[in-house]
Amino acid sequence: MNEFSVKQLLTQQPLSQPVTVKGWVRTFRSNRFIALNDGSTIDNIQCVVDFEKLDESLLRKISTGAAVEISGTLVESQGRGQSVEIQAEELIVHGTADPETYPIQPKKHSLEFLREKAHLRVRTNTFSAVMRVRSALSFAIHEYFQKNGFYYMHAPIITGSDAEGAGEMFRVTTLDPVNPPKNESGEVDYKEDFFGKETNLTVSGQLEAEAYAMGLGKVYTFGPTFRAENSNTSRHLAEFWMIEPEMAFFDLDDNMDLAEDFIKYVLRYILENCQSDLQFLEKRLQDEEKTKPQKERSDMSLLDKLRFVVDNNFVRVSYTEAIDILKNSTPNKKKKFQYPIEEWGADLQSEHERYLVEKHFKCPVILFDYPAKIKAFYMRLNEDGKTVRAMDILFPGIGEIVGGSQREERLDVLRGKIEELGIDEEELWWYMDLRKFGTAVHSGFGLGFERLVLFATGMGNIRDVIPFPRTPQNAEF
Amino acid sequence: MNEFSVKQLLTQQPLSQPVTVKGWVRTFRSNRFIALNDGSTIDNIQCVVDFEKLDESLLRKISTGAAVEISGTLVESQGRGQSVEIQAEELIVHGTADPETYPIQPKKHSLEFLREKAHLRVRTNTFSAVMRVRSALSFAIHEYFQKNGFYYMHAPIITGSDAEGAGEMFRVTTLDPVNPPKNESGEVDYKEDFFGKETNLTVSGQLEAEAYAMGLGKVYTFGPTFRAENSNTSRHLAEFWMIEPEMAFFDLDDNMDLAEDFIKYVLRYILENCQSDLQFLEKRLQDEEKTKPQKERSDMSLLDKLRFVVDNNFVRVSYTEAIDILKNSTPNKKKKFQYPIEEWGADLQSEHERYLVEKHFKCPVILFDYPAKIKAFYMRLNEDGKTVRAMDILFPGIGEIVGGSQREERLDVLRGKIEELGIDEEELWWYMDLRKFGTAVHSGFGLGFERLVLFATGMGNIRDVIPFPRTPQNAEF
Repeated sequence: MNEFSVKQLLTQQPLSQPVTVKGWVRTFRSNRFIALNDGSTIDNIQCVVDFEKLDESLLRKISTGAAVEISGTLVESQGRGQSVEIQAEELIVHGTADPETYPIQPKKHSLEFLREKAHLRVRTNTFSAVMRVRSALSFAIHEYFQKNGFYYMHAPIITGSDAEGAGEMFRVTTLDPVNPPKNESGEVDYKEDFFGKETNLTVSGQLEAEAYAMGLGKVYTFGPTFRAENSNTSRHLAEFWMIEPEMAFFDLDDNMDLAEDFIKYVLRYILENCQSDLQFLEKRLQDEEKTKPQKERSDMSLLDKLRFVVDNNFVRVSYTEAIDILKNSTPNKKKKFQYPIEEWGADLQSEHERYLVEKHFKCPVILFDYPAKIKAFYMRLNEDGKTVRAMDILFPGIGEIVGGSQREERLDVLRGKIEELGIDEEELWWYMDLRKFGTAVHSGFGLGFERLVLFATGMGNIRDVIPFPRTPQNAEF
Repeated sequence: MNEFSVKQLLTQQPLSQPVTVKGWVRTFRSNRFIALNDGSTIDNIQCVVDFEKLDESLLRKISTGAAVEISGTLVESQGRGQSVEIQAEELIVHGTADPETYPIQPKKHSLEFLREKAHLRVRTNTFSAVMRVRSALSFAIHEYFQKNGFYYMHAPIITGSDAEGAGEMFRVTTLDPVNPPKNESGEVDYKEDFFGKETNLTVSGQLEAEAYAMGLGKVYTFGPTFRAENSNTSRHLAEFWMIEPEMAFFDLDDNMDLAEDFIKYVLRYILENCQSDLQFLEKRLQDEEKTKPQKERSDMSLLDKLRFVVDNNFVRVSYTEAIDILKNSTPNKKKKFQYPIEEWGADLQSEHERYLVEKHFKCPVILFDYPAKIKAFYMRLNEDGKTVRAMDILFPGIGEIVGGSQREERLDVLRGKIEELGIDEEELWWYMDLRKFGTAVHSGFGLGFERLVLFATGMGNIRDVIPFPRTPQNAEF
């Protein structure tokens, strides 16, 4: 077989060898030059057809988007911009794409327009590049953990427990929606539901990952998680993928070391393996930034930003230090913050995080040791009795990309916290068991995968880095 | 740092070097020998403590399941069964496990008992081995596809389309369960729901993967899928993970070649990377089989079975040939089949598949070219007008492990089929678009991940190869 992908062809020596390639026409000009793409790479292969030898009706079928099979000879390219090209000898059109109705034409389409065509947008340069980078990042994540002695675990998606409290949940049910069975007090009788209880889509696999870390040592999840929140922003999805490593015998410092090393590894991986896609995305971002006022433009190009993260240490700052910095900051003094920082204990808003990361430190920042009151019940209480061993990693332009903590491993402290918050301990019986039997220091974090892809690709809206985004009022496809 | 995992320690040269290890006590005998495990491997490291030097109260805390940290000297082992051991100098107990209440004691527990303790069962040899093999298989799957030019895509979990028709679905909603909003005809008004329409959990990512294959060429999904079916069997889960590759320009033969090559690759990967776990699981299976009558026991050991699949070609048989074989088979003639095979067109039942695989061919079988009537609407119609380019891979002891097909790429044929089946074409508008614009021959398959793990580990019940199984009446943890 002489069949090759475009990616393979572009690295072949042109020895006038016979080759066959199958793909889609990106452009067809002068009745002679087909730029062919098959998704294997951002680059096209130029196929030169002799229109005098081609049937007129066949020629008319060659238009942007048509699926074709071309056989011919691989030769050194005469034109600029490519090293090899195919002198086509045989051309088969598998599927046409009527220029009158095919929406993806060789011109600039807005990202909003393409969002409505999520089934076709992967045929564009921008989205194919984003999705290849997404795929490479996914693999780098698995490779990193597997190389470092972690085991991949699949946390459950449907959960009967809502104790984590990370956000609003979607109900999962097979009950009759119009006339659900009800109990004596007029409430829905979930005993009749598929699982015999009320069930929801998971907001996090952390608690289950903790159970597995206490047996396998180091584990990670990489699966979909859900938030039924009415957030129509460029940073929120109702369905998104999350990576959650969990490690026995890791304290918060180990946890921060791991998170930083991990992020650098996966970004280094795409710098090494996705060069042409990243170069394209860098150019796309530059073009987009040109349309913005000078002061809103970024100082660094996409590749510069990625290299900066890979090559520099993340700054580690305690919440208490951060509050001091913010209190004394110019925007706080000049009352430019929407939420002025007045005292220790304040929850940090996006504007504060951005100030710290983008103005003050100008690099990724790990904030740690937050007030217990603004963090989750399972985080380990410090000796001061008022802060917990939490950490968030903040990225320029993205905000929080990682949230993690050392977990409270002491049964009595955890039980006290649960009682204080009025959480039903019965619901968490199995989670408490982890503290009753062989408990140990342990830690973990969650990384929102789409936010990482946003950062890695320089895209501006999270809906453009997942194949089929789910947001309020939108579950098309 | 002299800190090592048990897996690392067991491959070190014993040079009387200082080492520290953290893990859980598996057994403690003669007040002297701790078998310590940290999940990194099935094997334990023996730690020898000098009980005369240890505090009595500390000694009492060392029991099965306790989390301990041991520092000492790594020396050549004096005992049998291990090459190295630790002469313990310091011992810290992080968490005790009261033998009176800790359920995982060093004795045989039934799999049914452990299913009730899904949060603790990963601390046993059997489940830790299964879950390490599961993790290795997951990684092998990603590695195979990435090496072969496929891109990983995340298909949506929440879907507004139920056209695939692969099974009963779970509804996803945020509507008030007691008093949902209703429209004039008394039906639930899903316009008020989170997504503005009725949504369900996906049964397959195939249709979306097809859209991506028509842009990226070769893609695969690996994500959770759902069936709301009341099947309480050892082979069904309500929530399970599926791998679905989809390839542009692949016909059914290419598809079968890929599936076979893929399965062999991932099984070869665990044969090479999970030796000690597989040896343990082989022994476990042998012990289990000894409790069965002779004729129900398997001829081959677990490792033999895996090697057999890796080393032999799968037999490819058309449905038509298979029907002939079954019609003339002894069990059919002797009326031993619950569903006798009388004529071409019959749907094959589990008993028929098992006969073909386990009695007739005695190896994995790929059945292809099924009657159109018993297969899904999207499968490509053959020239005979009555069969479709479907293929199922059947495994001994497991049954169907892969189901795939060449997809119908011809718009008119697909439309005819959809009309015939009364499917709403509006629902599939975007799927039809794939045939309108640049359509091409393409194929794909779905592999049920848990069935692969069942086969690879020799476990008998699918609930024992996923961390937290979801089945009717069961969504605990």
